[in-house]
Amino acid sequence: MFKPDKELIKEFAKLAIVNGVNVQSGQPLVINAPVEAYELVRECVKVAYQQGCEKVTVNYNDDVKTRLDYENMSENELANVPNWQIERKKYEIEKATCYLHIIGEDPDLLAGIDPVKIKASSLARMKAMQPYQYYTMNNIGQWSIIAYPNLAWAKKVFPNKSDDDALQALWDAILYTSRVELDKTLDNWDKHNKEIHDHSKIMNDYNFKSLHFKNSIGTDLTVGLIKDHIWEGGYDISKGEFPCRFNPNIPTEELFTMPDRYHIDGKVVSTKPLSYNGVIISQFSLTFKDGQIVDYDALDNKEVLKNLIEMDKGTKSLGEVALISYDSPISNSGILFYDTLFDENASCHLAIGACYPTNVKGGTDLTADELYELGGNDSMEHVDFMFGSNDMSIVGLTYDDKEVEVFKNGNFII
Amino acid sequence: MFKPDKELIKEFAKLAIVNGVNVQSGQPLVINAPVEAYELVRECVKVAYQQGCEKVTVNYNDDVKTRLDYENMSENELANVPNWQIERKKYEIEKATCYLHIIGEDPDLLAGIDPVKIKASSLARMKAMQPYQYYTMNNIGQWSIIAYPNLAWAKKVFPNKSDDDALQALWDAILYTSRVELDKTLDNWDKHNKEIHDHSKIMNDYNFKSLHFKNSIGTDLTVGLIKDHIWEGGYDISKGEFPCRFNPNIPTEELFTMPDRYHIDGKVVSTKPLSYNGVIISQFSLTFKDGQIVDYDALDNKEVLKNLIEMDKGTKSLGEVALISYDSPISNSGILFYDTLFDENASCHLAIGACYPTNVKGGTDLTADELYELGGNDSMEHVDFMFGSNDMSIVGLTYDDKEVEVFKNGNFII
Repeated sequence: MFKPDKELIKEFAKLAIVNGVNVQSGQPLVINAPVEAYELVRECVKVAYQQGCEKVTVNYNDDVKTRLDYENMSENELANVPNWQIERKKYEIEKATCYLHIIGEDPDLLAGIDPVKIKASSLARMKAMQPYQYYTMNNIGQWSIIAYPNLAWAKKVFPNKSDDDALQALWDAILYTSRVELDKTLDNWDKHNKEIHDHSKIMNDYNFKSLHFKNSIGTDLTVGLIKDHIWEGGYDISKGEFPCRFNPNIPTEELFTMPDRYHIDGKVVSTKPLSYNGVIISQFSLTFKDGQIVDYDALDNKEVLKNLIEMDKGTKSLGEVALISYDSPISNSGILFYDTLFDENASCHLAIGACYPTNVKGGTDLTADELYELGGNDSMEHVDFMFGSNDMSIVGLTYDDKEVEVFKNGNFII
Repeated sequence: MFKPDKELIKEFAKLAIVNGVNVQSGQPLVINAPVEAYELVRECVKVAYQQGCEKVTVNYNDDVKTRLDYENMSENELANVPNWQIERKKYEIEKATCYLHIIGEDPDLLAGIDPVKIKASSLARMKAMQPYQYYTMNNIGQWSIIAYPNLAWAKKVFPNKSDDDALQALWDAILYTSRVELDKTLDNWDKHNKEIHDHSKIMNDYNFKSLHFKNSIGTDLTVGLIKDHIWEGGYDISKGEFPCRFNPNIPTEELFTMPDRYHIDGKVVSTKPLSYNGVIISQFSLTFKDGQIVDYDALDNKEVLKNLIEMDKGTKSLGEVALISYDSPISNSGILFYDTLFDENASCHLAIGACYPTNVKGGTDLTADELYELGGNDSMEHVDFMFGSNDMSIVGLTYDDKEVEVFKNGNFII
């Protein structure tokens, strides 16, 4: 039976609480976690209180129950967000809460469920929570995402292994890519954070006007970048009542910034399947003109892709462009995780939907309308998809019209 | 490793959902459960949707986290009930929700925690929820309690067994006392419910004015009974939007009714330890005069008993008197469960605190004040404690001053 090593669980919990959310003395913490992860959660709670956390609240979720909900509940009931859930969110924000999200989702969770039901449910939830989205998107409070294996996910990633072996293999892969090593984890992350920040600085100094992506499978896309954009990556700094460093994503390899929603042109072809709302969309392409998606195609679940693109005014454009060398640890592991937290860090990616206000100078001081005018995209959604390949070339164009090679054969060369 | 049999889990889930809460088509269900019970919860969710449940919500709790909360949180924060929790309760009642509580608590959970902290926390929670207590106390919506083992509880009950053997033994005992047998469980309960109701009828026909309890270890207590009291037991009938039969307690053996809070006199000596707010109070006695506790003593944790008795105006009197033959299945198992759900069904018991309005004719139509005037006790608390013994005698006094032997040598004889 799969029984994760207790010392490694403790080490992972320390990473999640100290480097991940970095909960501050007197600050409350909310942990969202799958029910199978309760032993990891207990260790996280222990470490959080050792750090002086005021109160830990844990909300457990369960994939198996979620699937039963979608199979049995009416569309109306699925789309019903009770007011107390909004009151809870308000309360958490008032108390300057930080959030740890432990994820682990069956990539095929909602396969076969009526897309109309899925859309109704996710749209209602996003609409209800939109007024509070700024809290995370602007890093007012710290937040962090880590992963824990479950059987359905493990069997999707390792279909030829036994149940226990698949769980163990996925757990090993999570720890390896999350740089967890007994007594070395925090040092590993200090070093890794520094490397990413050094790289960001080089990109920020170039201050490119646009990037041109091209490879042999059909991507030929120019992505304009917002003036005074900021390349971010690794740790971030929270801006609310408890300002401090935190690592939103564990693992993370990316540098990312804000596209200019007026200037995106050409075609992009995905290189990894996208698991969206529990359904896998594979081999899809998007064509842009003047920043808007004007055409799209997919081998599977095109209907779900359509729902995403037609969700709101911002789901026809991009909110994030991220660069990752093809020669990265997650990519080198050769594992397709069917999960964005991992797969986005194996490959250059774009995000349909909202931008991060932190990706432009002064962005967090702007209103949503001001940021939108400037060219930052606005949406209830933010969905990453992967398009990096081993032959990707990226050429940056500077404001004085110089061309600079950024990527060659899938890797950074500057 | 303890791995409960899947077929028995399914059978138990069917009992909990069909006979326990008996969720109705179109009705929502809330399940509160310990995190270790997630496989049982999944089966309960499945059965609930098969019965036409509108929506299942699951709230997981975790003893290990609760202990960490008490060790680390301030008294103020422990006593803080955010408003959204009250909004949630209101919403659930508006929607005519039924509740399944899966319990399984370490009897020593809060041993060594400052009783002041425990009192502050439980008092605040009870005060906040008191306006909604009527919903369960009057059986407006169905509710049911079942149990699931956890390691700390299992080791308390079976201290000499290995971890896995203790868990298995407690699970076996839960299923045995809950009358769970493959494909026979629902029939077992139909028969059991009928037997209890037949017995209630006999007691109701006598309509005793008072009961006199006496045994060799010091109990010598007269408990007046409310005029037109009703002896209840086994299934109940809900009175709200979805009226139906349900079994509040699984297991259950008791017949219970409403004491007259003006007329309780004499001394009662406990025969089993009481686990209250995670602390065990053992070998205690209470002395009553004119319905009020005027003296008390305990071998251990007298301070916690004091907190209970001084909680509010109603914790100095009784809200329930319950009769169980000493020769009952739970008693015969010889197991001390350290949990009221089981131990109360092994022995005659009394409850400090609120009465059940259903225990008097027309009681659910009275206001709280009217019921209190009549002699029904009112409190935020309702805490059962056991005083049955193998030599207990009970004599009933009728309104025409006839004495009738009800119990002899610990067992019913009428």
